[in-house]
Amino acid sequence: MAQNIYDEAEFFQGYSQLRRSVEGLDGAPEWPALRALLPELHGCHVLDLGCGFGWFCRWAREQGAARVLGVDLSERMLARARASTPDAAIEYRRADLEHLTLPAGCFGLAYSSLALHYIADLPRLIAEVHRSLLPGGALVFSAEHPIFTAPGAPGWSGEAEGRRTWPVDRYLDEGPRRTDWLAPGVIKQHRTVGTYLNTLLRAGFALSHVEEWGPTAEQIAARPELAAERERPAFLLVAARRPAHAG
Amino acid sequence: MAQNIYDEAEFFQGYSQLRRSVEGLDGAPEWPALRALLPELHGCHVLDLGCGFGWFCRWAREQGAARVLGVDLSERMLARARASTPDAAIEYRRADLEHLTLPAGCFGLAYSSLALHYIADLPRLIAEVHRSLLPGGALVFSAEHPIFTAPGAPGWSGEAEGRRTWPVDRYLDEGPRRTDWLAPGVIKQHRTVGTYLNTLLRAGFALSHVEEWGPTAEQIAARPELAAERERPAFLLVAARRPAHAG
Repeated sequence: MAQNIYDEAEFFQGYSQLRRSVEGLDGAPEWPALRALLPELHGCHVLDLGCGFGWFCRWAREQGAARVLGVDLSERMLARARASTPDAAIEYRRADLEHLTLPAGCFGLAYSSLALHYIADLPRLIAEVHRSLLPGGALVFSAEHPIFTAPGAPGWSGEAEGRRTWPVDRYLDEGPRRTDWLAPGVIKQHRTVGTYLNTLLRAGFALSHVEEWGPTAEQIAARPELAAERERPAFLLVAARRPAHAG
Repeated sequence: MAQNIYDEAEFFQGYSQLRRSVEGLDGAPEWPALRALLPELHGCHVLDLGCGFGWFCRWAREQGAARVLGVDLSERMLARARASTPDAAIEYRRADLEHLTLPAGCFGLAYSSLALHYIADLPRLIAEVHRSLLPGGALVFSAEHPIFTAPGAPGWSGEAEGRRTWPVDRYLDEGPRRTDWLAPGVIKQHRTVGTYLNTLLRAGFALSHVEEWGPTAEQIAARPELAAERERPAFLLVAARRPAHAG
């Protein structure tokens, strides 16, 4: 069973106050780049892995998705998602992504925002997602970038000396990292960019796009605190497809 | 015209003394991982971009390659390659990879070891390589990893304090980096992992494997100085294919 940190009071309280929790998709600076990777959603059956408050599920319906299944482990988040969603075409399901089973050949899009770096058994989940997609269906996800998750003691350095850097160590040593983000003892799973991509390839996906997200000049002008995000990428964005033939 | 640093006396002298220059392929710790990505070479026409002293060209012939074309900008390296190669099936050609033109639909393998991070116009070269491959042909290359090329002042930090880290900055700011490796003023082109991969995808390649190289436990036991290479990857290894149909 995965750690259910989002249901712990201190973490949930902190997470609920993040800009992306208050403002939804438009509060997440990487959203425009992630949105640009999505296929046409009209009439599409959509799966959202780690749906949280359901912002993406509702947005997908606004784009014309026929049905949306949002999956999350957090009772608190699902409760708020359901309360915000008077829409019978959206189903919120509580499940641990480590053990999730899905119907075969069902979805046109599997989407996941910042959830996969909590998953220890990524090959199992990715194989299940591949099986659940229609031929030609897309997988689009963001995860914390391995440069961000690798360090034993993540954080900026050298700001006092005028050269802000992100010291990297342990990059090749994949596995759990314990951090104190919003609450003490949050467990993330560090894996390399190569491992993310090879896991998709081994499951039969064809890669479409790989992006290490950084803010645009316009975004930095509007929110100067984002400038540091160009020194090292915090997010990895990936688009892949289940090939239409075989694969 | 690309910088021809390998023909400058100080650089050439330093490079010639590297283990990979003295011992050849087996002197490069990433070689076993790169070799594992290669297709069957028997009867294959092989292209080597940045062939240097010709170690890979000769090895490819030992594996049964029918013909090998090695391309390099350095007169000094090609002179030594030719002197080491009494084999009419290997052609060494002096050319700038920034402006290289190749025959269409000719090669079964395009290979490149640690050369592409010197290339400013990578999309042009990759498109030319794609065009030069047979349908189903492979591109396998190594390049300096973007974590390695990004920093404005690359190097280890914190060793005195007992935590060896590689401080990263400027990761999202792609373009030339001036370093003092073997000689002052060596120009490398920094680009993200995403840009390497998307350049291949846009040219029509299908990605097969992406690896951020680190030494194995056996390699570290034999050469303890390699241990630091697990803190951050120095090399990016990529395998891709020109699809057999369309693409």
